[in-house]
Amino acid sequence: MPAAIDATHDPALTSWVESANDPAADFPIQNLPLCAFEVSHDGHTHNHLGVAIGDSVLDLTSFAESRQLEHLWAQHADPALIECLFMGDWSVLLSEVPAATVRLLAQSLLRADAPAGQPVRRARQKALRGIDGLAFAPPLAVGNYTDFYASVHHATTVGSMFRPDNPLLPNYKWVPIGYHGRASSVVASGTPIRRPLGQTKADDAAEPAFGPCKLLDYELELGLFVGRANALGEPVPLSHAEDHMLGVVLLNDWSARDIQKWEYQPLGPFLAKNFATTISPFLVTMEALAPFRCPAAQRPSGDPRPLPYLADDADRQRGGLDITVEVLLLTEKMRHDGLQPQRLSRGTARDLYWTFAQMLAHHTSNGCNLQVGDLLGSGTISGPTPDSRGCLLELTWDGPGKPRRPVALPTGETRTFLQDGDEVILRGSCERQGFRRIGLGDCRGVVIPAPAGPARN
Amino acid sequence: MPAAIDATHDPALTSWVESANDPAADFPIQNLPLCAFEVSHDGHTHNHLGVAIGDSVLDLTSFAESRQLEHLWAQHADPALIECLFMGDWSVLLSEVPAATVRLLAQSLLRADAPAGQPVRRARQKALRGIDGLAFAPPLAVGNYTDFYASVHHATTVGSMFRPDNPLLPNYKWVPIGYHGRASSVVASGTPIRRPLGQTKADDAAEPAFGPCKLLDYELELGLFVGRANALGEPVPLSHAEDHMLGVVLLNDWSARDIQKWEYQPLGPFLAKNFATTISPFLVTMEALAPFRCPAAQRPSGDPRPLPYLADDADRQRGGLDITVEVLLLTEKMRHDGLQPQRLSRGTARDLYWTFAQMLAHHTSNGCNLQVGDLLGSGTISGPTPDSRGCLLELTWDGPGKPRRPVALPTGETRTFLQDGDEVILRGSCERQGFRRIGLGDCRGVVIPAPAGPARN
Repeated sequence: MPAAIDATHDPALTSWVESANDPAADFPIQNLPLCAFEVSHDGHTHNHLGVAIGDSVLDLTSFAESRQLEHLWAQHADPALIECLFMGDWSVLLSEVPAATVRLLAQSLLRADAPAGQPVRRARQKALRGIDGLAFAPPLAVGNYTDFYASVHHATTVGSMFRPDNPLLPNYKWVPIGYHGRASSVVASGTPIRRPLGQTKADDAAEPAFGPCKLLDYELELGLFVGRANALGEPVPLSHAEDHMLGVVLLNDWSARDIQKWEYQPLGPFLAKNFATTISPFLVTMEALAPFRCPAAQRPSGDPRPLPYLADDADRQRGGLDITVEVLLLTEKMRHDGLQPQRLSRGTARDLYWTFAQMLAHHTSNGCNLQVGDLLGSGTISGPTPDSRGCLLELTWDGPGKPRRPVALPTGETRTFLQDGDEVILRGSCERQGFRRIGLGDCRGVVIPAPAGPARN
Repeated sequence: MPAAIDATHDPALTSWVESANDPAADFPIQNLPLCAFEVSHDGHTHNHLGVAIGDSVLDLTSFAESRQLEHLWAQHADPALIECLFMGDWSVLLSEVPAATVRLLAQSLLRADAPAGQPVRRARQKALRGIDGLAFAPPLAVGNYTDFYASVHHATTVGSMFRPDNPLLPNYKWVPIGYHGRASSVVASGTPIRRPLGQTKADDAAEPAFGPCKLLDYELELGLFVGRANALGEPVPLSHAEDHMLGVVLLNDWSARDIQKWEYQPLGPFLAKNFATTISPFLVTMEALAPFRCPAAQRPSGDPRPLPYLADDADRQRGGLDITVEVLLLTEKMRHDGLQPQRLSRGTARDLYWTFAQMLAHHTSNGCNLQVGDLLGSGTISGPTPDSRGCLLELTWDGPGKPRRPVALPTGETRTFLQDGDEVILRGSCERQGFRRIGLGDCRGVVIPAPAGPARN
């Protein structure tokens, strides 16, 4: 069952961190996403855990070091939390303490009207760090990464490029299609993305060649973090899938289209995708998302009803996510000219053909074991209209047989695919009458040039 | 460069562990594969590290607890090893200490002619544990798992089933084809394999159905463990790839053929493979394999020369592995009747179209970062003859349009695919004139029935 809407969403709640009370803030006190970041002391780098609030992060590890948490926590109950904060790993902590408990603690520390003595006030102020100065890590160390293909609009448009008369394969409306991605190369927002080298073959070439990717693309996705494990051989039924969902981040599934085209048959994408995947560092929990749940996307009439293991009334009524997502581009010249990033597309997770709960239930239906810290990508989120296409492969496509139509930028530049120096920025947010807007923060990456020459012996 | 043949391979070396001196032993003192296993004490389960010798394992963690290692080790040099042994994780240890150093230590503890005082003798005897009684874990915790497709005979036979006139896709002889597998479900030999549930669709059915897999198969592979990491964005050139290779295990890539057929387009195998992958628990190091290196498989005339990043003289001359591998089957009835397992096929890793060094160099050519503990599967190892086909999909295939030809067993039973109760056993060994034979140990798994009903809500 989706998390409940409770008092933690009260729109009248404000924080003593003033920036959180700006109506446009991504991180009001109703959000409180989990994050992890590096802090240097004693000549070593440590991973600290925190929650984002306004333009800052409350560093829970530092706060715990002040020994004020025991005092405060006595009213709440869970001493296990304190020890885990020092370990710098949300996975360990969330195996011991529910995310809802962490949310309550953080809210009690951050609300404007919290009764707090002088030592607590001093400690919490000292534990506040500006977001801009922090080196973020992925919020949880990613154990296994699976990428799905849940946008029927994306699958249809991409399918049209190869099979104009039959864009969707016969399994699409029955199977939440997914494949395994690479966990080691999942990086946090801000990490530069090196243009990959690889094998490509032009249609008219007799042989492939090895060199820098020429058709570099982004993909606009959401990533779901798993918050509860299941044992190998023990499927999670759809009705319990929400219990295993921790929260979401933005995810950019960088894609080398020319490498992909040559390598992907018969076993799927490999080097075209595994050179990097960027995620936003702020894990917005299912508790924070509770007011923004919505019905699963309506299936067009004539589409098959999902098989029983993928069909559940509660999921149909509340399994969707009303999250608006968008892609922005900032080229080197735009940056130089002091221009703002330009939006390339905007879509919504409401449109996904499969809910995350369906993806998770399907993933485990054969007994596959998910672990805390596993990441499930939604696949590119595209909508039915051209301005909601979530990657350049779709966005610059103008129909079968036609040349690609480049995107025009305010500098007079154009883009069919990404160039070195381009920064791709993903954003996401939730709005609903009667609730505070929440955002997902930025998911950014700048493309840097390929290594000087091909890998040599 | 492949590891050197040195004094540690002297065929005259014998061990005080008598079973290791049997010429048929998999684990003579010239082998000494790394392993990890569970030991209970103080009411807790701990991971211990050891090396296999004859019918036993020398438990290096227990030996270190005896405090005799410091004494012995003073002559050798590396105190970091001792602390790491207590952590129960080869990945940590091998980031500090070369595998060749561990090999020297283990050999000095196990050779028959080692000068050893009474306390060392007592401690090493006490640290000896029978293999049969141990609960093994994978030798290293698998971080990321990639499966390749390096047997051209396998790719050709399987391709023939779908495209009789054009079995190999155009990229095969240029690209070491691979895809990401699931790391969390890699299990050690002996773990029961639950038959997966999944979606399948019969050719003549209008709609798919959900239920137990009917076409369960094994795949005979070798798995390479990565022993040295590379940073994201920094390819490993082919000439350095051997430095990143730790050693090999046997690998059974269990496959649900009916699930695979329905799900795998367009992104590759997913639930058909990720319910379980079994590996043998004995990691045979590249140092132990040094005498059994051989030239890479000869490419048939007319095949393209690999692109420069996949071409290296040393790799061509010594990049191959002369490992004979075989599959055996033991059904429940055979077990009941006291029969021995029956061999289904035998092949050799000499036949692989790509060397592991080529696979590793290709994997990192786009900057993808490999980590210590990552696992690279070879893909099914099949040879050119019918009796060397490494999976039932190939073994029972009799040509296009013909019915499958089941395997006959001594009980009068037949098998086209696996039935519940069947145990699949992979074995591997290396033999060469003038050297002690070494083996890889058993890689076993018994198929147990699917969950009683389909996953329910």
